[in-house]
Amino acid sequence: MSRTIRDALTKDTRLCMSLAARPSNIGTRFHNYLYEELGLDFVYKAFTTTDLPAAIAGIRALGIRGCGVSMPHKEACIEHVDVMHDSAAAIASVNTIVNEDGVLHAYNTDYEAVATLLAEHRVPSSLSAAVAGSGGMAKAVVAALRDNGFGEVTVIARNEVTGRALADQYGLGWRAELGELRPGLLVNATPIGMSGGPGADGLPFDEDAVRGSEAVFDVVALPPDTPLVRAASALGKTVITGAEVIALQAAAQFELYTGVRPSPDQIRRASEYSRS
Amino acid sequence: MSRTIRDALTKDTRLCMSLAARPSNIGTRFHNYLYEELGLDFVYKAFTTTDLPAAIAGIRALGIRGCGVSMPHKEACIEHVDVMHDSAAAIASVNTIVNEDGVLHAYNTDYEAVATLLAEHRVPSSLSAAVAGSGGMAKAVVAALRDNGFGEVTVIARNEVTGRALADQYGLGWRAELGELRPGLLVNATPIGMSGGPGADGLPFDEDAVRGSEAVFDVVALPPDTPLVRAASALGKTVITGAEVIALQAAAQFELYTGVRPSPDQIRRASEYSRS
Repeated sequence: MSRTIRDALTKDTRLCMSLAARPSNIGTRFHNYLYEELGLDFVYKAFTTTDLPAAIAGIRALGIRGCGVSMPHKEACIEHVDVMHDSAAAIASVNTIVNEDGVLHAYNTDYEAVATLLAEHRVPSSLSAAVAGSGGMAKAVVAALRDNGFGEVTVIARNEVTGRALADQYGLGWRAELGELRPGLLVNATPIGMSGGPGADGLPFDEDAVRGSEAVFDVVALPPDTPLVRAASALGKTVITGAEVIALQAAAQFELYTGVRPSPDQIRRASEYSRS
Repeated sequence: MSRTIRDALTKDTRLCMSLAARPSNIGTRFHNYLYEELGLDFVYKAFTTTDLPAAIAGIRALGIRGCGVSMPHKEACIEHVDVMHDSAAAIASVNTIVNEDGVLHAYNTDYEAVATLLAEHRVPSSLSAAVAGSGGMAKAVVAALRDNGFGEVTVIARNEVTGRALADQYGLGWRAELGELRPGLLVNATPIGMSGGPGADGLPFDEDAVRGSEAVFDVVALPPDTPLVRAASALGKTVITGAEVIALQAAAQFELYTGVRPSPDQIRRASEYSRS
């Protein structure tokens, strides 16, 4: 039975939400799909704010159950939460806040999802790795690689300041370009390949590097088949997509908010629905 | 076509809400009914809070479009809003906040609804009036009577402190009991007659006073046919009910939030739906 806004919403329905500078509809559709599928009395909606401290104080004061945190708030929100759990503390970056009776708990399910996917796709930690990017997702990837035994990781970033800072934080090397490096694992944590962006049709690594790799990991989720994913798939490489990351991290958020773990099939359908 | 939570909610859907110590489902059902009826991309949900300043700051920071304010926040919220409109300033009590791009405008649609109903039911201002009660609704009624030319108004309240304070504020007389007074207009602004309350089966004025009056106004909305409303109707008096007040004030809130004025028939149906 479908839950209409008119009939299903009551004073007791719990609200979950997200905060981002530029919200998408993906989270709203993913969570509301699963609430319906699982018969849970929740509702989800994306928000944006220019006053993060007041927004987080409002989450606490209004009893909003959970909040997904996106750019540019993942680090700024740290001082406004009450408990930093390991996944968020590991990379000093929060993407999930859970409100337990006014106490705000912070997690990073991106970090957890990256680690889980590296294991599920059996990417050997003996591979050398290059991570393109120096933003929040690059940090989650680098930390997950380091914490899962990858010994040889290089940060590739045009921006020397943020690139060196990320590399130095984990005792890694930094390069502006991949150059002659031929790592076994290539990770794209830049927006290159994202639909609607300036590099939508581009590759973050040249085709020769893709050919020389064993596994390719793209964190861009829209479209699921980025130019990098298509090139790597055509070459028969192990491929991990941004769509997998976003679905897995959203499922982890979902479980933190509701206490219910959706099945892999439910996650897959919710994920497809969220992008449709 | 019915709007399901799953399919209809997007990042652009606007949230309206209410704040009360003990929320009911009436507002949630009333507003969501009309959003569906009118095809508006809004959603409404009741909230409660123990931290009013943070809750109101959150409304501003999250871009929540509007908020209905109930007991015990109607006066406490004044210092947290930005613009006090005449209806709220007239009685120093806010029941509606509208967020215009981060600027919080405050109104009192109870006051407006009481004034409108006195005019619609053609209650002559030449009648003497007695108002039972000294809370927020009593204040709205007394101010509406005063501002609409009623010259002889008495406040009836067991609580001498709040009763005298209300009477003094408007230069009126106060009495603990109606006694031998036989006013032309009797207004109940106490909880007597409210379902589930201690005085659910009681009358706020004795039957002889009801018989001696020309018009009776009960602000209790649940049930719509309180013992007072039934007694006055049986005696053929002009009767104004709390159900009319709540529907009219909610319609005024609805218009402030959405810019759309529902038709009287839509208000009637939404009001019935909200109590079902």
